[in-house]
Amino acid sequence: MQLIPNKIPIKVGEKYIAVLNEHMAHNLDLHPGDRISVKNGRKGEIIAILDITEDRKEIRDTEVGLYIESWEKLRAKRGDKLCIKLAEKPISLQYIKDKLDGKKLNKEQINEIIKDVVHEDLSELEIAYFVSGCYTKKLDMEEAVNLTKAIVANGSQLKFNKKIVADKHCIGGVAGNRTTLIVVPIVTALGITMPKTSSRAITSPAGTADTMEVLANVLNDAAKLQKIADKVGGFITWGGGVDLASADDKMIQARHILSLDPEGMLLASIMAKKHSVGATHVLIDIPYGPQVKMATKADAIKLGTKFVEIGKKLGMKIQILASTGDEPIGNGIGPVLEAIDAMKVLKNDKDAPQDLRKKGLEMAGMVLELCGKAKKGEGEKMAEKTLNSGAAYKQMMRIIKAQGENKHKLRLGKFKKEIIAQKTGKIVETSNGMIAHIARSAGSPKDPYAGVYLYKKDGENVKKGDKLYTIYSDLKEGLEYAEHYDLNSVYKIK
Amino acid sequence: MQLIPNKIPIKVGEKYIAVLNEHMAHNLDLHPGDRISVKNGRKGEIIAILDITEDRKEIRDTEVGLYIESWEKLRAKRGDKLCIKLAEKPISLQYIKDKLDGKKLNKEQINEIIKDVVHEDLSELEIAYFVSGCYTKKLDMEEAVNLTKAIVANGSQLKFNKKIVADKHCIGGVAGNRTTLIVVPIVTALGITMPKTSSRAITSPAGTADTMEVLANVLNDAAKLQKIADKVGGFITWGGGVDLASADDKMIQARHILSLDPEGMLLASIMAKKHSVGATHVLIDIPYGPQVKMATKADAIKLGTKFVEIGKKLGMKIQILASTGDEPIGNGIGPVLEAIDAMKVLKNDKDAPQDLRKKGLEMAGMVLELCGKAKKGEGEKMAEKTLNSGAAYKQMMRIIKAQGENKHKLRLGKFKKEIIAQKTGKIVETSNGMIAHIARSAGSPKDPYAGVYLYKKDGENVKKGDKLYTIYSDLKEGLEYAEHYDLNSVYKIK
Repeated sequence: MQLIPNKIPIKVGEKYIAVLNEHMAHNLDLHPGDRISVKNGRKGEIIAILDITEDRKEIRDTEVGLYIESWEKLRAKRGDKLCIKLAEKPISLQYIKDKLDGKKLNKEQINEIIKDVVHEDLSELEIAYFVSGCYTKKLDMEEAVNLTKAIVANGSQLKFNKKIVADKHCIGGVAGNRTTLIVVPIVTALGITMPKTSSRAITSPAGTADTMEVLANVLNDAAKLQKIADKVGGFITWGGGVDLASADDKMIQARHILSLDPEGMLLASIMAKKHSVGATHVLIDIPYGPQVKMATKADAIKLGTKFVEIGKKLGMKIQILASTGDEPIGNGIGPVLEAIDAMKVLKNDKDAPQDLRKKGLEMAGMVLELCGKAKKGEGEKMAEKTLNSGAAYKQMMRIIKAQGENKHKLRLGKFKKEIIAQKTGKIVETSNGMIAHIARSAGSPKDPYAGVYLYKKDGENVKKGDKLYTIYSDLKEGLEYAEHYDLNSVYKIK
Repeated sequence: MQLIPNKIPIKVGEKYIAVLNEHMAHNLDLHPGDRISVKNGRKGEIIAILDITEDRKEIRDTEVGLYIESWEKLRAKRGDKLCIKLAEKPISLQYIKDKLDGKKLNKEQINEIIKDVVHEDLSELEIAYFVSGCYTKKLDMEEAVNLTKAIVANGSQLKFNKKIVADKHCIGGVAGNRTTLIVVPIVTALGITMPKTSSRAITSPAGTADTMEVLANVLNDAAKLQKIADKVGGFITWGGGVDLASADDKMIQARHILSLDPEGMLLASIMAKKHSVGATHVLIDIPYGPQVKMATKADAIKLGTKFVEIGKKLGMKIQILASTGDEPIGNGIGPVLEAIDAMKVLKNDKDAPQDLRKKGLEMAGMVLELCGKAKKGEGEKMAEKTLNSGAAYKQMMRIIKAQGENKHKLRLGKFKKEIIAQKTGKIVETSNGMIAHIARSAGSPKDPYAGVYLYKKDGENVKKGDKLYTIYSDLKEGLEYAEHYDLNSVYKIK
């Protein structure tokens, strides 16, 4: 069938989408979601996913609508005659159906799916079917390993000429837990390569990438990151800014819709990110407690065991830290507030948050022992020495400089509201979730100066009238939005 | 956040989609697939699904892209200031997740999902998640009943002031099986109301709606259908042309992508279509055999039992016919060829295909007995009398006139190719699938004159050189396309 191209002036991502009107689609016996080959003589050919519009005025019977990517790829001009025909479905669709049917997928099948995800040969809807197959029928260990390998193989990779490349990861859920900004400078100051990619906040007030962005540029491509790490031994960058494990980013979009976290995909997603930066030794922090994903220590250890197992199959040494996730770490919650906390720890300031310092040193020590830099039981001491000497701070400044310094002043938000204790007693619980809601409605992470500064920790005694915490925002409305929440429910006082 | 509307000149269906560029979406902390409220002062407000483009030129930072439906609903003008904010997710998304988790859904939850499907409050991707939940975790009988009721309640319905309203359905898979065109005239000639909605071909050479369209208009809305049935007692129309069970049509689109047929959805889909025309007595034809969906008679009966059970819960009497689906019914395959066959049967032509006549009479007889019109064992005789007397033909002409006659000449395709037996022997198998491929590549159903005319049936003896079948097409290329298939593999001769 020959049709004239009609340009739809918007980009839809790297994928190709072609649009026919309902009437023509019916005549051509084509259905929405079908793949069609669209050929523009010798100028080019694409396989596009078919969209259908009822709109016979905008897309006439003689026309095929092409979004910008397709239009450009076909070097189309008004008046060209394009040949349209039904194209074969990719074989990966059959594998996705197999997974929904509960069949186990082999290495080649998983790789085929991931290759098609990366090359935009599968639509969002088809990726969603893959996610639900993995969610409802689970991935076994072998499938998770193969998924990890496929994600790595179909993305960019960093390669270091080192026997040991360290990395860390935290499953998340604890506000203010910015240990990366302590651990990376300490470990790299001691000569171990540590290329750390981090995420931005999705539902939390700040991700590590948001906090690091206060201090330095976190948008670096793979080539630049390779150079930075070769020069200063490590970096802290935004993982989404570089196409390491890019298949994973696309699957996360489909998962986001229903907040689906298929365990096998979660494992593969994290391990692929570590594997693609060439990590050989990885510490994984799994907080547990009633407020986070893992309810009990046993749950955390059970998940941890799977990381260790999958790591073994990928040739990586994994160490697990099951940590309590009962209250925030540090005092500041929000990008700038957390950056201030971390810099205080690195500078050995007297009023640096001791819990953040302690957890940072513990984790850095574990990494040093895992990598064989420190003897068993001596890692934390080595870490502390490096921190106390100022070497970690100096190293952090080198990393910041190598990434490109960001000149945000480390100041507080222009508007603030102090929350006062309504009664005397002892703090028995701090709500990570409520703090996140309040900080986000105050504006974090997009307003980096917004957030919450906590004066109290679990177990402390407070008197009626004591300052409990302060909300900051650079916008007056930020404080008003925050007040929609019950501000007295952050701390439970008994 | 205030943004200026930018019209994207294409319709995307009744749903609302708004587009932001990547940069702004990140700043506003919004993700693809999020729901956002878009408000144009007092002129209107929509809840739209968010799409993201990397295209900062077409959709600038100050703009929100609106497809035609959204643009019109908001009565937007260039220069308007629209308010954008994150909207709540519909509660039905939680129920969809519950289903993926294997939970049983209750009546209200299923109704909520279907209501949102009909009102376009769920995206295609979210509907796909519902389909995969039903596919991987199954629907039990109660859920299937509630799904049926929800589909009916959220669509148009026909209502007849009759105690008995007959209907029939065939699960499909057998070429040429156009019994509807025999059964409806016979049954309605005897005074029983029979409002029949049929489908178009998806993968077959002709659906009943395609065949009926050769003779009469099959695009009628609910009000018109009500009138037709009140006047002549029945109709044969395209189900997709009227919004009976419209939720089902939307779910079928999501199912089509991976050809998923969750049993509970299949049951609900068929029963909803019967229920929404007010059917009280329904005959369901379930062909079985190696070439069709149900491999054995036992499989067909097992599925049939579920129809009977679900019918009971909906207050409908269901009769099952497990029929052999080993070879095509009738001689013609393709819209016009099948219409010719059916009209020959109705006119009692000497060369009418006897297998189609026989199956039509058997089914009409079963419907008459099911409805209590004929005594047990006497239905087929009553049907035959009605057919032989010419009353069925006269009734068919009344139905055609009431729907609006289509003036297609009942002629054959302009081009033809005869296929000759390569050897002498007995026909032991006829391939429904190969016939469908050949007829479709010759052009059916979009070329109504295209198709295949079969001269031989299973069990017949043939001599080398005998005519086996003829391929027809109104386009010369149709025959060329058909020749891509192995034309000698239609019949197995031993």
